[in-house]
Amino acid sequence: MPIPATGARDRFKGAALTLLRQGGLSAAGLNEVVTLAHAPKGSLYHYFPAGKLQLVSEALDVYREAVNKRISESLKGRDRLRVRVYRMFRSVERQMAETSFSQSCAVGTVVLDLRPEDGDLRQVCESVLAEWAMVAAHHLHELPDARRANAGRVLVTLLEGAQLAARAARNGSPLREAAEAFLMYADAIAQAPNGRLQTNSADSRRSDQRTRQR
Amino acid sequence: MPIPATGARDRFKGAALTLLRQGGLSAAGLNEVVTLAHAPKGSLYHYFPAGKLQLVSEALDVYREAVNKRISESLKGRDRLRVRVYRMFRSVERQMAETSFSQSCAVGTVVLDLRPEDGDLRQVCESVLAEWAMVAAHHLHELPDARRANAGRVLVTLLEGAQLAARAARNGSPLREAAEAFLMYADAIAQAPNGRLQTNSADSRRSDQRTRQR
Repeated sequence: MPIPATGARDRFKGAALTLLRQGGLSAAGLNEVVTLAHAPKGSLYHYFPAGKLQLVSEALDVYREAVNKRISESLKGRDRLRVRVYRMFRSVERQMAETSFSQSCAVGTVVLDLRPEDGDLRQVCESVLAEWAMVAAHHLHELPDARRANAGRVLVTLLEGAQLAARAARNGSPLREAAEAFLMYADAIAQAPNGRLQTNSADSRRSDQRTRQR
Repeated sequence: MPIPATGARDRFKGAALTLLRQGGLSAAGLNEVVTLAHAPKGSLYHYFPAGKLQLVSEALDVYREAVNKRISESLKGRDRLRVRVYRMFRSVERQMAETSFSQSCAVGTVVLDLRPEDGDLRQVCESVLAEWAMVAAHHLHELPDARRANAGRVLVTLLEGAQLAARAARNGSPLREAAEAFLMYADAIAQAPNGRLQTNSADSRRSDQRTRQR
């Protein structure tokens, strides 16, 4: 029985995604995608007539949706914030561990490969990161409304930075450390809902020390 | 007058660094480096007989030192923590703005290009990130000793994630948001020096709401 048409299309996107997660745009050359997808090169141009940009954009769209789902499923529900945030970071850690920390967020790898002429793709990446931040913000319901959008963006920044650090370290500890850092940040937000902390204890602690030293 | 020998060597490293900051390992092909350095290809092999790995390692070493200096100069001194942390993130923002946010941390771009066979380079990147975290920790003197190493690593994770987000957004706002997040995290640390927060106000705020709803 011939492989259904949609099968090949999805295989191309899946192969592109694997290569993107490994090494960004430069790793996802059309020849590499064809080889990994075990599909004829001619059909690549059939499904993606506009070439690499179309293939990468569609692959990132699949990834955008998958991560949206992962964020929602991790952060939703009635568990404590600590439980939900750790669930999110642990889920990323588990996925990275499957490839011995040799793959990471496909948007992150693409962003750090962008050339000035890749403007369209940059906008795709910008809007995907913004969407993830909004999905996260939606589920951070114990944080003050005025700070949730901000907290969603900080969560995404920490996730991207921690995936990078986890790839360098080849283990998940940067992800766990980032989860803990986010929770402490969230706690500080909950205590100072309207913006800057009033106390700024790190600074006041220091001036206490100075006073004591006098 | 002939260009002194050290000049060509440094020009190769400078060119490699520019290309690494733009697109990681894949962007720093030897031909591209030679073109950007305006130096004869033969002399590249003269200075870097071991080829690309040697060139990239030496370029990253220059970068490691430069960032060490940047971290120290931003975070040292008697200014308040807020002033010093913003100085750090602003300095990165200014540098990124010089290339319209088309270049970012050379270690970050290399890490997200690593293939499983690039083990040596991965270790270089891991130890550079760890060194930056230690240099930062050294200057975070108002934080409790037991948490400083941790805070240094969180600062580096936020810097890497925020540079990635700033490239996607093509502006510096993710860096400023990350600076503020780090300060709130630092404040929470200063209030809970021995580990987990006792209060966990984000959670208790929520259970307060639940109690009220009953």
